[in-house]
Amino acid sequence: MLGAIEAGGTKFVCAVGDHLGNIIDRVQIPTTVPEETMKQVISFFRKYELDAIGIGSFGPIDVNLDSPTYGYITSTPKEGWKNYPFVQTIKAAFSIPVGFNTDVNAAALGEVTLGAARGLDSCLYITIGTGIGAGAIVQGNLLQGLSHPEMGHVLVRRHSSDTYKGNCPYHHDCLEGLAAGPAIEERWGKKGIELSDQIEVWDLEGYYIAQALMQYILIVSPKKIILGGGVAKQKQVFSYIYKHLTELVNAYVVLPELSEYIVSPGLGDNAGITGSLLLAQQALENG
Amino acid sequence: MLGAIEAGGTKFVCAVGDHLGNIIDRVQIPTTVPEETMKQVISFFRKYELDAIGIGSFGPIDVNLDSPTYGYITSTPKEGWKNYPFVQTIKAAFSIPVGFNTDVNAAALGEVTLGAARGLDSCLYITIGTGIGAGAIVQGNLLQGLSHPEMGHVLVRRHSSDTYKGNCPYHHDCLEGLAAGPAIEERWGKKGIELSDQIEVWDLEGYYIAQALMQYILIVSPKKIILGGGVAKQKQVFSYIYKHLTELVNAYVVLPELSEYIVSPGLGDNAGITGSLLLAQQALENG
Repeated sequence: MLGAIEAGGTKFVCAVGDHLGNIIDRVQIPTTVPEETMKQVISFFRKYELDAIGIGSFGPIDVNLDSPTYGYITSTPKEGWKNYPFVQTIKAAFSIPVGFNTDVNAAALGEVTLGAARGLDSCLYITIGTGIGAGAIVQGNLLQGLSHPEMGHVLVRRHSSDTYKGNCPYHHDCLEGLAAGPAIEERWGKKGIELSDQIEVWDLEGYYIAQALMQYILIVSPKKIILGGGVAKQKQVFSYIYKHLTELVNAYVVLPELSEYIVSPGLGDNAGITGSLLLAQQALENG
Repeated sequence: MLGAIEAGGTKFVCAVGDHLGNIIDRVQIPTTVPEETMKQVISFFRKYELDAIGIGSFGPIDVNLDSPTYGYITSTPKEGWKNYPFVQTIKAAFSIPVGFNTDVNAAALGEVTLGAARGLDSCLYITIGTGIGAGAIVQGNLLQGLSHPEMGHVLVRRHSSDTYKGNCPYHHDCLEGLAAGPAIEERWGKKGIELSDQIEVWDLEGYYIAQALMQYILIVSPKKIILGGGVAKQKQVFSYIYKHLTELVNAYVVLPELSEYIVSPGLGDNAGITGSLLLAQQALENG
């Protein structure tokens, strides 16, 4: 039996299941301070005989196996979680293999194994919600180099009609600064969900997301792109993404039919937690 | 013994050597029409008993092993080379294993194996010259998905003082359209090599290159970045790249000291041809 943690900034989802994505129990735990949250996480898993646990975590995290701080959440502003030894805490409690990666890399793994990119060896998963993050599978492996990707902060060109300054504390008007949920709310004065019928909102949103996808396509050439997160539940945004991306790419690279290439998660809201089960399975196989 | 072809738009470099990068013979052949150029290529290799040949080619090319046009140069405007069966032509002549990838992916392979990124499992090689292209090694493998990367065409933000419209036939003011050699010449009225002491030229060039590197770093997180090609031989551009990249990243991701992270090719002008020898070696090992 496998355990999985999808660790987010507002809540942790913990689940118990198998490597086929079957989930037999799950719980949601609010993300407060580590002592409190992790106590509940550990007590949930204590009910089961687990072989391994997989963690898909908010970041930035240290995924470099050679690093002395491997397994840590690193520079988050979230109180109590900065330099938090996540893997070490779980290992100390259970003494079993622990897989560790970003929440979005876990979701990409879930989608490529059991979701919308099933059967492929490559996909990119991007979540657009409170923040923007993306992970990818490249030739069957979780994308990683010096560190994990930080694709939510790619540079985009501001639309000439957009006077909103952007709210990324690091880069002001990077993708996250202009297109995540809080940016939509600050720009238009309402949450995205209340703006569903406002064409200009989704046209502009599609304009920014398409630019990011253009960069991802030119750089990693994913075989499938999966759009998750709250903002991407506004399905009307897809047609604007297709429109702007078609203009940007201008037939320079050959892409599949966009409505089949850029899609919603096959696993719905379970991409992250399912991918975390698969991280547990990988950890088990690698000892 | 291994053969290698670095196939460029103006010349082909052919070499014979080994997988340690030792080259015992080489020749340069002008790129004219395929019948003419390939006749000379084949006649050069006929002098040797070869076990495999590696090709690092200008693109776009078809690197998808499952594709019916695998091994082809595809949509180039270069006369005679559009839909040219490159691998098939070499195989027909020699009946030995043939490795095939982009010139820049080959250069990245050369640099990670025997050059500036030796000992790492990850690097990005970008060439800035007549055009701009980049290849990468990710977790030890040549980066590839739906197709090979087309990183030279990433979107950049135009500098407010730059009125040059850009010369990319597909995207106008993408990176290649604003920062390749021909763009420098058209914008400033002279070739880059004649503008070595013009600070504003290299500051602007660094401004655009840094934006592209920012995207590459956020998306694939390479462990080393290698800048090759004619424009990058103007070493003064490096300090401007470092300056602009530092401002853009704004300490959001932790990078090595930039002067050690973003460097010239360890193999000098031999990165591509050496990488092509290594593609031959890979083809030999894979049968």
